[in-house]
Amino acid sequence: MRPPQIAYPVLVADVGGTNCRLALVDDPEAAPRALARIGTAAHPTPEAAFETVLSSLPERPRSAVLAVAGPLEGRGARLTNASWEFDGPRLAGALGLQQGLLVNDFEALAASLCVLGAKDVTTLVPGQPDGGARLVLGPGTGFGAAALIGRDDRLLLVPTESGHIGVGPEDPTEQRIWPALTAGLPRVTVESLLSGDGLVRFHRAVAATSGMREAEVSAADVSRLALDGDPSALMAVVCFWRLLGRVAGDLALVFKATGGIYVAGGIAPRLLPLVDAGVIGAVFSGKPPMEDLAARFALHVISVQDAAEQGLAAIAADPRRFGLDDPSRLWFG
Amino acid sequence: MRPPQIAYPVLVADVGGTNCRLALVDDPEAAPRALARIGTAAHPTPEAAFETVLSSLPERPRSAVLAVAGPLEGRGARLTNASWEFDGPRLAGALGLQQGLLVNDFEALAASLCVLGAKDVTTLVPGQPDGGARLVLGPGTGFGAAALIGRDDRLLLVPTESGHIGVGPEDPTEQRIWPALTAGLPRVTVESLLSGDGLVRFHRAVAATSGMREAEVSAADVSRLALDGDPSALMAVVCFWRLLGRVAGDLALVFKATGGIYVAGGIAPRLLPLVDAGVIGAVFSGKPPMEDLAARFALHVISVQDAAEQGLAAIAADPRRFGLDDPSRLWFG
Repeated sequence: MRPPQIAYPVLVADVGGTNCRLALVDDPEAAPRALARIGTAAHPTPEAAFETVLSSLPERPRSAVLAVAGPLEGRGARLTNASWEFDGPRLAGALGLQQGLLVNDFEALAASLCVLGAKDVTTLVPGQPDGGARLVLGPGTGFGAAALIGRDDRLLLVPTESGHIGVGPEDPTEQRIWPALTAGLPRVTVESLLSGDGLVRFHRAVAATSGMREAEVSAADVSRLALDGDPSALMAVVCFWRLLGRVAGDLALVFKATGGIYVAGGIAPRLLPLVDAGVIGAVFSGKPPMEDLAARFALHVISVQDAAEQGLAAIAADPRRFGLDDPSRLWFG
Repeated sequence: MRPPQIAYPVLVADVGGTNCRLALVDDPEAAPRALARIGTAAHPTPEAAFETVLSSLPERPRSAVLAVAGPLEGRGARLTNASWEFDGPRLAGALGLQQGLLVNDFEALAASLCVLGAKDVTTLVPGQPDGGARLVLGPGTGFGAAALIGRDDRLLLVPTESGHIGVGPEDPTEQRIWPALTAGLPRVTVESLLSGDGLVRFHRAVAATSGMREAEVSAADVSRLALDGDPSALMAVVCFWRLLGRVAGDLALVFKATGGIYVAGGIAPRLLPLVDAGVIGAVFSGKPPMEDLAARFALHVISVQDAAEQGLAAIAADPRRFGLDDPSRLWFG
């Protein structure tokens, strides 16, 4: 039995802890048209925020497919790093929508993997991609990951909590900076090192280990300093990329992601000018005794900004194509 | 379109690098009846080995569903640690079978999770299991893992190569023994520490770090010595269990395995008398900031010997129920 189709136009939005990008999709074949980028802090609720954008449109959306950077519970969700709460049917009622779906941000990015093209990514390791599992992961405010696994005629979105697995030092550089890097952490996780906060931690640890005194800086500062040639910031970025490459290769093994690994999030594209593709290739693919499998893994950085919205549009176009873990998440107002 | 049913009786066999256990399943509701356990080294080919067992049966099997501890390629497979090669249709021709299917050993174990009962497992951490993903993993000759993910009316078998992800020291005891533990390894992987060889490595590292001289012993020796109260062996087993609990908890996060985590393989049941469930619970579930999710994970040790055969019988009873990554793996002779 096929569920009812999603009614167009569809509002798609990538709702992060700081910013929210809204776009409109006119029909199942259309690309998302950007509407606005708004700060979540400027509006008390998503209903209020969305209404300010929608009220100026000639044609209102009839459905919404939203990616929320936070835990989902059925048709509800809340942002991890802001006060917004989402209740699907309530949102639909307030905005006059017929139906909608909430997914998490990495589910949206996983869905985007079937529509992104070569122009949307920067390839660091070409590999020999095939029709196997694909994996999207990456550092942002936190570290997210989701897999896209094809089975029969479906593409299954498999959410993961891979950002919260533990991590220990595995090379001499890491062993040297580890005590300073992980000081004060109750538990050292992938997310605690591969995130905006993690980049700052790397910077502080590199400076402390070399006996330098560094000012308190933000993740954006570290990126900027590194691009300007500041040695501690450069070394922090080198360590960050190495760990990111290693973790990406390990998670590729977990999911046998021969379809390709995609790094998402705002940090990696900004640090692309500083990546050493040879080093990344070595830590990403250097996985004895699984060299043959690891040599097939491709590593890309998603450089296009609206990947999540593209994924949401793909889900809207054919929700049945994507195996949601709970089909009742698609609500009807 | 439903594929043809598997014809009964069905030969099921769990083919490991050292031993191979054969059983017969009379009908879709029947439990596997053990036929024989044979050493792979004693026979040049699986055809020859199986024929010696089948020739004495009053009724020959009409199909075979086999679990092979090694890489699969479509309808073929080869053992990692022995010379046997499998070619599905060739085997069917030689043994007079109509059809069959090769899966890997952890796919068979993953399938068994839907038929194993409370009597077949020892529960170390009760958790609050639900209908979410289930995960089977564990140390043997290597370290295997596979997930069982329910989607729609299917149970998807998701093979992984999680044994080959890297691992670094994450607690003070590990930091202390790490140099001795990992000496000579080109790369420190889960499998290099959580396997029979890994248990021997832990024993050697504990002895070396404490300045003791230990005889060269096998994994079985370490288990026996530990059960007899030998301090180095006991400490090796404590370290082994701690790392196993930690890795199991991390992989549970990767797969959001709220359906439960099952430890398979021959080593864990043997070391059960030495497990400290409190310590295991702490390293398995102590995953800040994901305590709420981790508290739901259950951890069991599969203590029944024929779990793989039970999984194969479940697959034979309804291959469509299990989402094979490639349906053409089911061959017809």
